[in-house]
Amino acid sequence: MIRTDMPDVEAYMLACMSDAAHDAEHIYRVLQYGLRIAKAEGGADLRLLTAACLLHDIGHPEQFADPRVDHAAAGGDKARDWLLANGYTYQFAEAVRHCVQTHRYRSNNPPQTLEAKILFDADKLDVCGAIGVARNLLYGGHIGRPLYSVDERGAPLDGTEADGTSFLHEYNFKTKRLYDRFYTDAAAKIAATRQRAAQDFYAAIMAEIRDCYQGE
Amino acid sequence: MIRTDMPDVEAYMLACMSDAAHDAEHIYRVLQYGLRIAKAEGGADLRLLTAACLLHDIGHPEQFADPRVDHAAAGGDKARDWLLANGYTYQFAEAVRHCVQTHRYRSNNPPQTLEAKILFDADKLDVCGAIGVARNLLYGGHIGRPLYSVDERGAPLDGTEADGTSFLHEYNFKTKRLYDRFYTDAAAKIAATRQRAAQDFYAAIMAEIRDCYQGE
Repeated sequence: MIRTDMPDVEAYMLACMSDAAHDAEHIYRVLQYGLRIAKAEGGADLRLLTAACLLHDIGHPEQFADPRVDHAAAGGDKARDWLLANGYTYQFAEAVRHCVQTHRYRSNNPPQTLEAKILFDADKLDVCGAIGVARNLLYGGHIGRPLYSVDERGAPLDGTEADGTSFLHEYNFKTKRLYDRFYTDAAAKIAATRQRAAQDFYAAIMAEIRDCYQGE
Repeated sequence: MIRTDMPDVEAYMLACMSDAAHDAEHIYRVLQYGLRIAKAEGGADLRLLTAACLLHDIGHPEQFADPRVDHAAAGGDKARDWLLANGYTYQFAEAVRHCVQTHRYRSNNPPQTLEAKILFDADKLDVCGAIGVARNLLYGGHIGRPLYSVDERGAPLDGTEADGTSFLHEYNFKTKRLYDRFYTDAAAKIAATRQRAAQDFYAAIMAEIRDCYQGE
């Protein structure tokens, strides 16, 4: 199933997909967000942006095989190599590589170009709201991360503990802090409309957990 | 970490646990719900109920190894055999077996005893509300089930399609229909307080998906 005007790039993306949180629909959503942000902001190269959105997560299989590998770095190299081998120019391939390598939140490697900033924002939008909650949980199920952790007495932790690996911890230390970290106004506006759904879900799940364990 | 007054049964349960949706905390929540329902309803054998709650999902590894295996049937036999080998009476072991074998929703094998009905209800409570949504997604990530399916044109489906396997399909055909299928009034009351969180999450995720794909 091909849905873009870059069928060669799209087919390569489909051949590289992995888990349910980073499946092809995540890629298509990021592409939709990217094109919407580009339209609102103006000035972006849409062909470059399309290729970058389609290829931004192709490094995931390498990261699953070896958790020390950064899927953004691996995916950037992989995207450039594939583009060069399939008739794209060196300049285009290097520009896509920059977008892919900087789409992950890493303070020492921020996106520099407009297309890279748009990809970064589009990808982060898919971590916001109810879809973001769902993807966090799907990914947790894939890697065996629990909903919440418990302390040494078996009491549930709310995810604000310093060390931890759980859905609640991921939400408190990563997801909920994304909403004011967008490069573009267009993305920040879409994210703001979705923040409430994530907050409501976190509040509901905390209430249910507390009710269950405190009992009676 | 032992948190019940049946440490032998609890230790055996902990040795049998599997995925993040059916981890030890799911078992402890079901035990908490079970004891709360028993207190409200009266008349239940709490030692039998505790053993049944602790052991109700020990058949999951067998089902993961071979999807044709029903974890309730396998777990019932496994629980009975373990109890008989560890000093429990035949009557107790068979009563636990009945509870475990009937805890899954199967119209041809309903729970007959009060303890079996309470376990059934306690287990279904953990499919309700925000925790139920989260467990559905964790399990989906574990088995590679997507958030939603798309039609042949790539348009997202809302989970009401006849055939399908996705979070949205599971919600529409299974999860949302549970709320009026409890045996005990106590469980139905707890479930009613959680229904809104699940409905709100489904509505939010549908709105975000539609907004993304319809775009502009």
